[in-house]
Amino acid sequence: MRLLIRNADVVTCSRPGEIIPGGCMAVADGKIEYVGPEQPAGRFDRVIEAKGKILMPGLVNAHTHVAMTGLRGYADDLALQDWLTNYIFPVEDRMNADCVRISAQLGMAEMIASGTTSFSDMYSFCDGIAQAAADCGLKANISRGVVCFDDLPFDTEHNPRWAEAVELYERWHGYDGGRIRIDLSVHAEYTTTRRCRETVAAFAADKQALVHFHLSETKKEHEECVARYGMTPARLFYEEGLLNRRALAAHCVWLTGDDIALFAETGASVAHCPVSNLKLASGIAPVARLAEAGVNVALGTDGVASNNNHDLFEEIKLASLLQKGVTLRPELFPAGEALAMATAHGAAAQGRADCGALRPGLDADFILLNAAAPAMTPYHSAASAAAYSARGAEVCMTAVRGRVLYENGEFLTLDRERLSAEFERRVRPVLFP
Amino acid sequence: MRLLIRNADVVTCSRPGEIIPGGCMAVADGKIEYVGPEQPAGRFDRVIEAKGKILMPGLVNAHTHVAMTGLRGYADDLALQDWLTNYIFPVEDRMNADCVRISAQLGMAEMIASGTTSFSDMYSFCDGIAQAAADCGLKANISRGVVCFDDLPFDTEHNPRWAEAVELYERWHGYDGGRIRIDLSVHAEYTTTRRCRETVAAFAADKQALVHFHLSETKKEHEECVARYGMTPARLFYEEGLLNRRALAAHCVWLTGDDIALFAETGASVAHCPVSNLKLASGIAPVARLAEAGVNVALGTDGVASNNNHDLFEEIKLASLLQKGVTLRPELFPAGEALAMATAHGAAAQGRADCGALRPGLDADFILLNAAAPAMTPYHSAASAAAYSARGAEVCMTAVRGRVLYENGEFLTLDRERLSAEFERRVRPVLFP
Repeated sequence: MRLLIRNADVVTCSRPGEIIPGGCMAVADGKIEYVGPEQPAGRFDRVIEAKGKILMPGLVNAHTHVAMTGLRGYADDLALQDWLTNYIFPVEDRMNADCVRISAQLGMAEMIASGTTSFSDMYSFCDGIAQAAADCGLKANISRGVVCFDDLPFDTEHNPRWAEAVELYERWHGYDGGRIRIDLSVHAEYTTTRRCRETVAAFAADKQALVHFHLSETKKEHEECVARYGMTPARLFYEEGLLNRRALAAHCVWLTGDDIALFAETGASVAHCPVSNLKLASGIAPVARLAEAGVNVALGTDGVASNNNHDLFEEIKLASLLQKGVTLRPELFPAGEALAMATAHGAAAQGRADCGALRPGLDADFILLNAAAPAMTPYHSAASAAAYSARGAEVCMTAVRGRVLYENGEFLTLDRERLSAEFERRVRPVLFP
Repeated sequence: MRLLIRNADVVTCSRPGEIIPGGCMAVADGKIEYVGPEQPAGRFDRVIEAKGKILMPGLVNAHTHVAMTGLRGYADDLALQDWLTNYIFPVEDRMNADCVRISAQLGMAEMIASGTTSFSDMYSFCDGIAQAAADCGLKANISRGVVCFDDLPFDTEHNPRWAEAVELYERWHGYDGGRIRIDLSVHAEYTTTRRCRETVAAFAADKQALVHFHLSETKKEHEECVARYGMTPARLFYEEGLLNRRALAAHCVWLTGDDIALFAETGASVAHCPVSNLKLASGIAPVARLAEAGVNVALGTDGVASNNNHDLFEEIKLASLLQKGVTLRPELFPAGEALAMATAHGAAAQGRADCGALRPGLDADFILLNAAAPAMTPYHSAASAAAYSARGAEVCMTAVRGRVLYENGEFLTLDRERLSAEFERRVRPVLFP
């Protein structure tokens, strides 16, 4: 299968701010063969005429809980503890494998329609999430969020969540040439014991697996860790072997200067979730300082229960604007850099060297944006339009490894009508009886 | 003409958080006849089946420069002074009546498609803006932004901008039963003289006209005014007779506690523009404190040169989230209040008592949102979905006084293809030679 896209304004995300006006991309067997100004020779099975469209890498959602799509708009405007304890946890207690799978599928449909091609997830009943991602064609780094409140021997016999994490890893890691990857996870410092974290760290080191966790999301969490251990969550995780170059730390709102230095030293990545952090009143992460220290910062939506959508274009714009606004430095995070956070940096945070930019040899994970939409007209710069004017609604094609998952409003790998009906019939009565 | 909308989830914006699930609205001769749970009797010329849709008032964009739509994405990531002096002003110097009219029409198309039914504008060559609004069916409060750097006698002979403002008022104010209103304007403290401001204040008092101005947008502007006059811009405008209950002050980022008290005392309105304030690194307006003081806070996009779109749903969500995030108080500005800022508060800021909510007797300015869109599924609460999940793309109908301007992607009062072509042929060569 050989595919040609021509006359697109190409935002490569390969070099900061690189744009190829009216450019071409050739794809063969799911890999990018060519990106540049000329039309390559040879025969193509499909030629996509993309005049008036922006071609860019698919977006990477570096932190979400996609099965929480079932909880969209159910609990807003609440303090985090009230929100978790009195709203989220009681519903999550009723979650079963069926609810998780169907809710996750709805979330994946939303991601595909708004230009996401890969996501990093943390949840439970992950087998259904992996199966759903496998089926719809997305890339996914999936982790079973391990929580542990006692200090018993931490093994697959005593902790069923850890058992699920290990089984998940063994069953799914590397599926379809690495399209599905399994990461390890500790949910957070305040929901795990030291023994638990050290066990996860040792397993991850042995397998060279990524570890995904929440870190310093709220002031309370950060300060209670300092009171408990005499060190910040970042320092603690560093000492315990979790904060290293294969770590993906979500939120990181309350990091200290010393914490930022630890991220820079280790090469750990941050999943910045600006919408969720504002909505839950967690605060504003020090992203400008992280970037200045050379830390890899990717973007995440978090679950839609605290967002309330999966549209990463909102995170791209807000991540840039928020840092400009709080530092009073408008030059920070220009359009090209904001787009890189959601593409190249996201792929790096997922440990995926084979995507995140449009460059020969990489997987052909790409999206097309309609530059003739009302919110994009007139149009001066592809990077500006993509970073600051566009929303997911401007996405008119989403493809992973050259396989088109979505085109002009049509889903090619899933049945959204059926999913919505399934949710109403089989999920809503269970979650909201 | 009698219209019925039925089975919609109605967000009335009439009382905070009021929702009528599966409700009806009847419209006769452009006015709302009935809103409630029952289907009213009688014959209707059109019945709109709105199951799976949210019905809410049209949005009010309380501060924009719609003709700057021509400058979308042309200059980003720059400090305000550099942006204005080296990018915006040189292009605006080339603006002519034709460029303003066509650019404004493109902006109005974007507004209509994203659910805005009324806007407050400040610019030059306003006759074309008024004509464009008159033609496309939107409501608009239009003002000629008066600037004046000398201290000559300030009259229609010596200041052509003031002459234009007065002519505009005489020609257009009250057009089509008040669908077009003309406000007065002083651009800002730093771009006008005392004599200019006092002349505008006297004219406005005489006509009972609204006055629209920029106020304390940047720290520099605020502090230089204090240095110049020994008082803040708000206090100065109060002393000069401009800050009163008919005032609409845009931005208000650097207000002091005393300034906020002046707004509360006078009943002046604030047009909060969170996207623009972040993007230009002006800062974050003290909206929570304004609301607590009882000040009427509306929302504006500002021009797209600093936004870069006219999607007020972005402002609704960001206004709420930003105040939650910076105050660390998640309960502030819940969904219903955030929606009120963009509807009822906006209409109040425009001096329009006849719209801004869905209530019998008011103008039938309304929109329908598709609650079955991927970003809205599943769906729990109409207010939450509209405030936090939706974007302009979810708008499937926009109507002003019962006249449908937009339906399912089709514009019924303008020709967008022709406008885009006109922009390329007649505007781009003039603005960007």
